[in-house]
Amino acid sequence: AADVSAGPGCDKDAEEYNMRHPKRGVALILNHQEFADVAPRRGSSRDCENLCAELEKLGFETRVHQDLTYIALSAVLTETALEDHSTADCIMVIAMTHGDSGYLHSRDTVYHTQELWLHFTGDMCPTLVGKPKIFFIQACRGTMVDSGVSVDVTDSYTTSYVLPTQADILIAYSTVDGYYSWRNPRSGSWFIQALCHELQTHGRTRDLLTLLTFVCRRVAIDYQSTVPGDENMDRKKQIPVITSMLTRLVYFGQNQRV
Amino acid sequence: AADVSAGPGCDKDAEEYNMRHPKRGVALILNHQEFADVAPRRGSSRDCENLCAELEKLGFETRVHQDLTYIALSAVLTETALEDHSTADCIMVIAMTHGDSGYLHSRDTVYHTQELWLHFTGDMCPTLVGKPKIFFIQACRGTMVDSGVSVDVTDSYTTSYVLPTQADILIAYSTVDGYYSWRNPRSGSWFIQALCHELQTHGRTRDLLTLLTFVCRRVAIDYQSTVPGDENMDRKKQIPVITSMLTRLVYFGQNQRV
Repeated sequence: AADVSAGPGCDKDAEEYNMRHPKRGVALILNHQEFADVAPRRGSSRDCENLCAELEKLGFETRVHQDLTYIALSAVLTETALEDHSTADCIMVIAMTHGDSGYLHSRDTVYHTQELWLHFTGDMCPTLVGKPKIFFIQACRGTMVDSGVSVDVTDSYTTSYVLPTQADILIAYSTVDGYYSWRNPRSGSWFIQALCHELQTHGRTRDLLTLLTFVCRRVAIDYQSTVPGDENMDRKKQIPVITSMLTRLVYFGQNQRV
Repeated sequence: AADVSAGPGCDKDAEEYNMRHPKRGVALILNHQEFADVAPRRGSSRDCENLCAELEKLGFETRVHQDLTYIALSAVLTETALEDHSTADCIMVIAMTHGDSGYLHSRDTVYHTQELWLHFTGDMCPTLVGKPKIFFIQACRGTMVDSGVSVDVTDSYTTSYVLPTQADILIAYSTVDGYYSWRNPRSGSWFIQALCHELQTHGRTRDLLTLLTFVCRRVAIDYQSTVPGDENMDRKKQIPVITSMLTRLVYFGQNQRV
């Protein structure tokens, strides 16, 4: 007899991922506030606290790694992927750090953004095959800023970026490629603030893509930079981008354990 | 008093786009079956018929352009963007053609994929600001084929692609960058078949991202190539990719006109 808890455990035509495994799964949080040779990211510890609180409410086993060097970060990713996730619903990896187009900062050096998910592909991580692999990235992807164009939410630019391409992977990036990602030194980054708000409000009732669409709306509409005296940075806008290769809906509300 | 029919017409915190304008909007279908100097895409007319039928049921004004040259295609895109879309819910553009990484084929020459949406950004097309701008692309993005890895839907590769980055834009691509996009000469392409099926089944009841998640599942799970005698092409898989900068849910069911 099939052991439902040991595999994806859902019918091939199921609309929703099986989120009733014995464990919700690991939420790996790579938080970077202090760096060897770039400016500290003030406000990131606030993001980290808020995010942990919301994810734990949803049953995740949060693991915060603070200011890792590249070697340590790489080891954490590799080792996490090598664990047995058979009894978990999913995996979540969150990176909050400095970045630029295509790469992120560890404490001591930069690394390619896709290193975050390369370890979790189906061939590398068979115990997560058919399960949602969720990546949230709060980081700049360049230095451009967006003035917005119009009455409400629209902005206008076009550019390129690198993404993995794999079934059951979802990547939500705080901003579009080439652009600045805004953070308030006291209240935290716009994207993580909006994400926490939506996890809290709709985390158990809405599917993940709906919830992230609402995150996009919050960031796009509710936030605008305030840098009086610096015309190039004042009153700017931001829009996150969701790239989904999910094949079913993700509902965190299904878990009866929490 | 505000003229609801002339703008996005939804409260800034509305969960759903306003899909109750006087018109649903234009669905521009750029169908390419015959080319000046590459092989015909047999089965594309089948895709085109099926798609038109489903989109008309949802209230779209379908406009099919067959085998356009680049000059003609470019003119159609520009002129469509210059129209007044004030009374429309949204715009949809569908390209079904040959392609490779970053570009698509017109009848006589290739063009950059992003030319499809560049004309519809907020600054170029103010009457669509704050409204969903939906792009579906059925085309190869390279020559790689995916053998899949596992029990059901997972595959494993990583690559890059070019996308626009703008609020309220959604782009669904039949396949991931670098990869082949499968088409049956009789029944049509996997992606458009799955899209039509989902539009028919859930077009009026589910939001667009949910519906497209189900399209991904259909393509990933229900289809596999059958090319007996060619080991390199036989029993291959495909996964579409959805990139969303939407800020609200899209429901085609709201329209009371149809």
